[in-house]
Order: sequence, then C-alpha cells, then structure tokens
Amino acid sequence: MIQADRLLTDCHVATMTEGGVPYGAIEDAAILIKDRRIAWVGARADLPVHEAVETDRLEGRWVTPGLIDCHTHLVFGGDRSGEFEKRLGGATYEEIARSGGGIVSSVKATREASEDELFASAMARLEGLKASGVNTIEIKSGYGLDHDSELKMLRVARRIGREGGVRVRTSYLGLHAIPPEHRADRAAYVDKAVDDILPAAHAEGLVDAVDAYCEPIAFTQDEVSRLFEKAQSLNLPVKLHADQLSDGGGAALAARYRALSADHIEHSTEAGVAAMAKAGVVAVLLPGAFLMLRETKLPPVDLLRKHGVRMAIASDCNPGTSPVASMTAVLNLACVQFRLTPEEALAGATREAARALGVLNEVGTIETGKAADLAVWSITRPAELAYWLGKPMLYKRYSHE
Amino acid sequence: MIQADRLLTDCHVATMTEGGVPYGAIEDAAILIKDRRIAWVGARADLPVHEAVETDRLEGRWVTPGLIDCHTHLVFGGDRSGEFEKRLGGATYEEIARSGGGIVSSVKATREASEDELFASAMARLEGLKASGVNTIEIKSGYGLDHDSELKMLRVARRIGREGGVRVRTSYLGLHAIPPEHRADRAAYVDKAVDDILPAAHAEGLVDAVDAYCEPIAFTQDEVSRLFEKAQSLNLPVKLHADQLSDGGGAALAARYRALSADHIEHSTEAGVAAMAKAGVVAVLLPGAFLMLRETKLPPVDLLRKHGVRMAIASDCNPGTSPVASMTAVLNLACVQFRLTPEEALAGATREAARALGVLNEVGTIETGKAADLAVWSITRPAELAYWLGKPMLYKRYSHE
Ligand SMILES: [Zn+2]
Ligand SMILES: [Zn+2]
Repeated sequence: MIQADRLLTDCHVATMTEGGVPYGAIEDAAILIKDRRIAWVGARADLPVHEAVETDRLEGRWVTPGLIDCHTHLVFGGDRSGEFEKRLGGATYEEIARSGGGIVSSVKATREASEDELFASAMARLEGLKASGVNTIEIKSGYGLDHDSELKMLRVARRIGREGGVRVRTSYLGLHAIPPEHRADRAAYVDKAVDDILPAAHAEGLVDAVDAYCEPIAFTQDEVSRLFEKAQSLNLPVKLHADQLSDGGGAALAARYRALSADHIEHSTEAGVAAMAKAGVVAVLLPGAFLMLRETKLPPVDLLRKHGVRMAIASDCNPGTSPVASMTAVLNLACVQFRLTPEEALAGATREAARALGVLNEVGTIETGKAADLAVWSITRPAELAYWLGKPMLYKRYSHE
Repeated sequence: MIQADRLLTDCHVATMTEGGVPYGAIEDAAILIKDRRIAWVGARADLPVHEAVETDRLEGRWVTPGLIDCHTHLVFGGDRSGEFEKRLGGATYEEIARSGGGIVSSVKATREASEDELFASAMARLEGLKASGVNTIEIKSGYGLDHDSELKMLRVARRIGREGGVRVRTSYLGLHAIPPEHRADRAAYVDKAVDDILPAAHAEGLVDAVDAYCEPIAFTQDEVSRLFEKAQSLNLPVKLHADQLSDGGGAALAARYRALSADHIEHSTEAGVAAMAKAGVVAVLLPGAFLMLRETKLPPVDLLRKHGVRMAIASDCNPGTSPVASMTAVLNLACVQFRLTPEEALAGATREAARALGVLNEVGTIETGKAADLAVWSITRPAELAYWLGKPMLYKRYSHE
C-alpha cells in the first residue's frame, strides 16, 4: 500500500532511463508522487495498491523529466541587442569594440547593476526557459570579473534558486575574460581569481563548480590549470569552455582534471574525445551559439558516439553569442544543426545534462526515489519536442516547490 | 476634441512608417483608439484634447503593429515529427517516401481529418504565433489536392479568421504537389485545379489569392501560367513559391503576372530580381525552411536591396520543411541567417508583410485610420525582438476583436 500525495495518470512517460526502449518510454503509464519524490512509476495496469490525495488525469499527454539547462550565463546586466543591430548594419568587430561593445560592455553593465536589477532581468529570461519545461538550470558568474561583482552574480544565482521556481547549480567562471583594468597585467588577475575570489565565493557557499574559458582569446592551459588545482583543493568539481573557436587541447585538459563536462568542443580532435570518454567527461553541445555565430565547424558528434562520450545540450544563454531562452528551441537546433536524434537531444536536456551537473542521482530521469521534477507536454510523441520551433507544448511543470 | 475608447500612454511606438527615423519610432508616445481604429498617434507631448473611456499605461514598453505572418501552411492533418526522427536516425529520403512519408503523408492525413480536427490542430500552432505578437496570418490550402479537401482546408482557414482572434487571408495552393492518384496524369489534375476547384472555392468566398509551387519537383511555368490566367479572370491576385531549390525563372514569372509576392527566391537571378522590382512584387523570405533544410544558398538580399524590392519575412509554418510557429523566432533567423537588419526584419513582419497580402491600407503600420492591431512588448529597444530567441517578450496584443 503506497500512500501518495498525487497520482498522475492517463499519460505516457518518457522516463529517459537507459538500456531499454527508446526514451525509456512507458505508454499508458502512471506516476505516484510522495513528498515531491517519485514513489512509483510504471504501466497503469501495474499500478500498486495506493491512496493518493490528488489525481491528475493528463488526457494522454507525455511526461518527461523536467528539462535541465546545464550551461547558462543567465545573470548579466544590460543586453547586447544594440551591438547585434550595429553588426547587422555593417559595423566591424573593431568598430564595436572601439565603441565599448563586446563582453566589456556586459562586464560594465553587470558591475553597475544592483542585485535586484540582475535578479529581475535574469528572471525575465528564466520565464522563457521555464515555459520550455526547464526545472534545473546552471548559472555561471563571469561578467563581474572582480571580487564584489563575481560574488554579486553568484548571490543572484542563489536567489534564483530560492525564489525562481527552479533548481540552480552555480559555476564560478572568473576566468571568462581578462577584465579591462587588468589588460596590462593578466597574471595579477589570474592570481586574484584563483587566490581571492574563488575562495571567498566558496566560503560563502556560492560555488557548486568551477568553470573557465580555455581559448587563445581567453585563458591558456596553464592559467586554467592553476584555477583547477585550486578548485580541486577545495573539493569543487570543474568544467571547461573548450575548443570552441580552435583546437586548444581543451578536451584533453578537461579530461586531465576529470571535469564534469567539456562544453562547445566544436574543434576537439579524436584524441581529445577519447580522453573525455576515458575520464567520463560529458560533452555539452551549444547549438544556440553555433547558430548565432554562423559557425560551420560542427562538433564531432560521430566521434562522441563512437567513443561513447555522453552528450548534453544547453542554451548557453548569454548576451553576446547566444541570446537564447528556450530549451525546446535548443532541442530543435541540436537536431537540425548537429544531427542529434530527437532521443539524443532529449536525453541531452535531461539525463546527460543532470550528469554534466553532477545531479543525476536527484533528477534527469523518472525513477523511483528521484525528485518529482516533471514536465507534461501536449504532444503525441516525444520527437515533437525537437521537431517544432516556437510551438508552445508545455502543459504543466511539476517542480520541487 | 477626440472621443476615444482607449488611450495607450507611457509607451514608445515603432510605427514602422517609412521615410523618417528608424522604425518610424516615436519615443514617449501615445495612441488614441476609437472603434478599433487608430484615431491618433504621436508624441505624448502633442496629445490633442481628448476623452478616453479607458487608459492603458504601458510603463515604458514598446508598441509595434501587430505582426503579420504572410506565408503559412497552418492547416494540415497529422505532423511529420516521425519522419523528422527517422531522417535523423539515418533513413534516406527514398526510404521515407517508400514508407509513405513526405508530403503524401500530409495529404493523406489532411484528407482524413475532419474540419474540427484540422481547426483544433491549427489553433494549437496559432497559439505560438499569437504569443509572438501575430495579429494577421495568411493560410494556404494545398494538402487536400482534391475538390472537397481543398475546400475543407479553406473553410477551416476562414473559421480561424472568425474564431481564432487573428485576421486571416487565404490562398488557394492547389498547385502545391501532384496528388498521388494523378501521378500518371498530371494534366488532368492541373485541369481540375484550374477549372473546377479554384472556381468552386472562389464561388464560396474562400479565396483571397492564388498561389502555386513552381519548381522542377512541382509545377512548370506553363502549368502555373494556366492557373494564374484563371486567377486573373476571377480578379484574384496571385503569388508564387519561386526559385527555392533551383533557378526556375519563378521571380520573372511572378513579375509577369504582377504577383503580390514571390516567396523563397533563394536561387533567383538579378534579372528576376529586377523584374520583381519593376512589377512591385514583394520578396517573401522564409528563414525557417532555410534552417530546417540546412540550405546554404542564401536569398539575394543585396540584390533585393539594390533594386529596391520590398522584403517580407514569414514562418512558412508547415509540417515538412518549416515546423515553425513563432514570428519572433523568424525575426531572429532572418537576421542571423539572412543578415537582415532588425529594422528590415521587423518591417518584413509588419509593413512589407501587409503589402505582400494586399492589406497595407488596413494594417502593417501604426497610422491614423488604420486598424488598431497592435503588439506591446516588454523590451527597451525594437532590436530586441530580433535579438532574442525564445524569450517571451509580448506583453499584450490589441486585436480587431
Ligand atoms: Zn558559455
Ligand atoms: Zn510555403
């Protein structure tokens, strides 16, 4: 006899568990929820003896794990739509940089914004993600680039976790760009990020993982390694923006530090992919940035499949290269651009995204004991989630609140 | 003294009128509405003496004309997400065709669906378009391909115009594909489309314009010309799916018949573009299909600008090549892929889309005397509408109802 708070019935369930049928699908299924956890899931015909306080009849809809956006820069000041417009009007990158554009403008606006302002603008973007079924989101720092501003960003991320109706995992991304005041002295900035800002943010409980941007235009392998050593000394997992614009050995670097994930990786080589596989590093593919930057070098999806590297997908929501605030749009772009199958894409936005955040024990699949973070969709088959662009399909979210 | 039903104030207005400032913008503006028409629009400081029954303070938001989606196949039976999934799983086009896929499957599903079923499934897609600010939509037939089914589609389109909260313009697209039962005898189908179905649909008041698909895989210039002659004898304007996959002289053909628009036109030549300019044919660009088909041949945007051809943009919402149901997504894709400026994109989804439908006297800009079809957006500058992908920005629609 199961005592449940809620019975979901008259539905199909894409559990997204592995090893069985596609999508881990159970047709004509039921779910029992107790204390916001899955107490039972299975075919309705097998429903055990139970009592449920409430019953939700879902009229044949599909239930999936709540979607997980495992790579975002959701918190930032201002936006860069003015720059977007200038560039389309013919301005060069140099002209934009000279007029104060680029990441520097986001840093400036983020430093100037109050926590309340950052919270409010991030929440407006979060609305889009939630409307696309998102229940868990990773949020990075990296537009503050000084002690107070980085901690401010992370505090806003934590507040979104308390008040925003989603689970939040934070990443400290101090090595995102060299702040303008440190251009002549990058070593001093790296020192500060490693020895001052990260420990302070960690002491305040603001950091779930440590991220960095490894690219010739950003930080070197040596600089990233210094940060990662520090992270490991604090028992914090790491992840890496790797090989987005060039092959800088980022995939192998991520593997060396047993990173949770290596993200972007359009330019990673087979050796890098093999190293990721061996170290269990998840590949996080970011089709929004690929679209917005009009990239042509596709991530090595076939190599990832061949080596058995897990693939997650994410919005990379950020003001410069991916002003994207819908995970169903990301599902679509991952299939259309990267040729993921709809099942790979949906796994990438649930199970593998959970793995990339180190929270697969809690969310990412629909299994007994996991949190009842669920999305209910008005669709007739799971592939529709990746097929449509811009069609509202979400019927209801069940969140941890 | 203006007697108004409603005053919109504390807002900025992108009137989208030509010849003045970008976007025809009026900062700190006001709008008076009387009998669902614009009674006055201008700077708030110039507001004439008036009485208004209601006042809507818009807290600094932007008002644009209601968006217009001037090329859709919104009404169809079934969807093709299963085919989308098969193709991504590695199935060839032939394998999909052999298993009953492709347009034939949409024709079958459309023929089998009742008017109520077609209406309900189209309305679910329309929700996405309305949530992206759409107030006017064109809907084509073309998945019925027999007398009863084509008229059924057009009746559903008319019902959407009555019950769906949007203005609808219909297009008869009988020459969309050869129906399966006519494969051995295409001439007989063209005869039927021209001499039977179009006149019957017209007699029932179901046709606002006549469209055709001119392409080697579809219909020849001669076949299209026969249809267009008939349309002109019925005083119906024409438009054309032209030069999407190859240069078939579609742009010039459209110009010869003074078509409202030539749509797709990725492969049109400069001669075709010049002919369009001379005949006043609007170019309708369809970035959703470009994305989904992974096309690489861009429409000749520079030539269109050079010759002064008006550019509209549209969703092309259809089950095979553009399962897109958001006009803000289309704005984004038009800028990112086709390098339209945000202002060109927004004009393409308002003023030029109205021109492409022959309804510019009624909608498409915010001017005294026009219908008060408006969209209010929570943005700080118009370019944001094209910059974001998937962020909900619509605050409110004012429609003709
Ligand atoms: Zn990123
Ligand atoms: Zn079309």
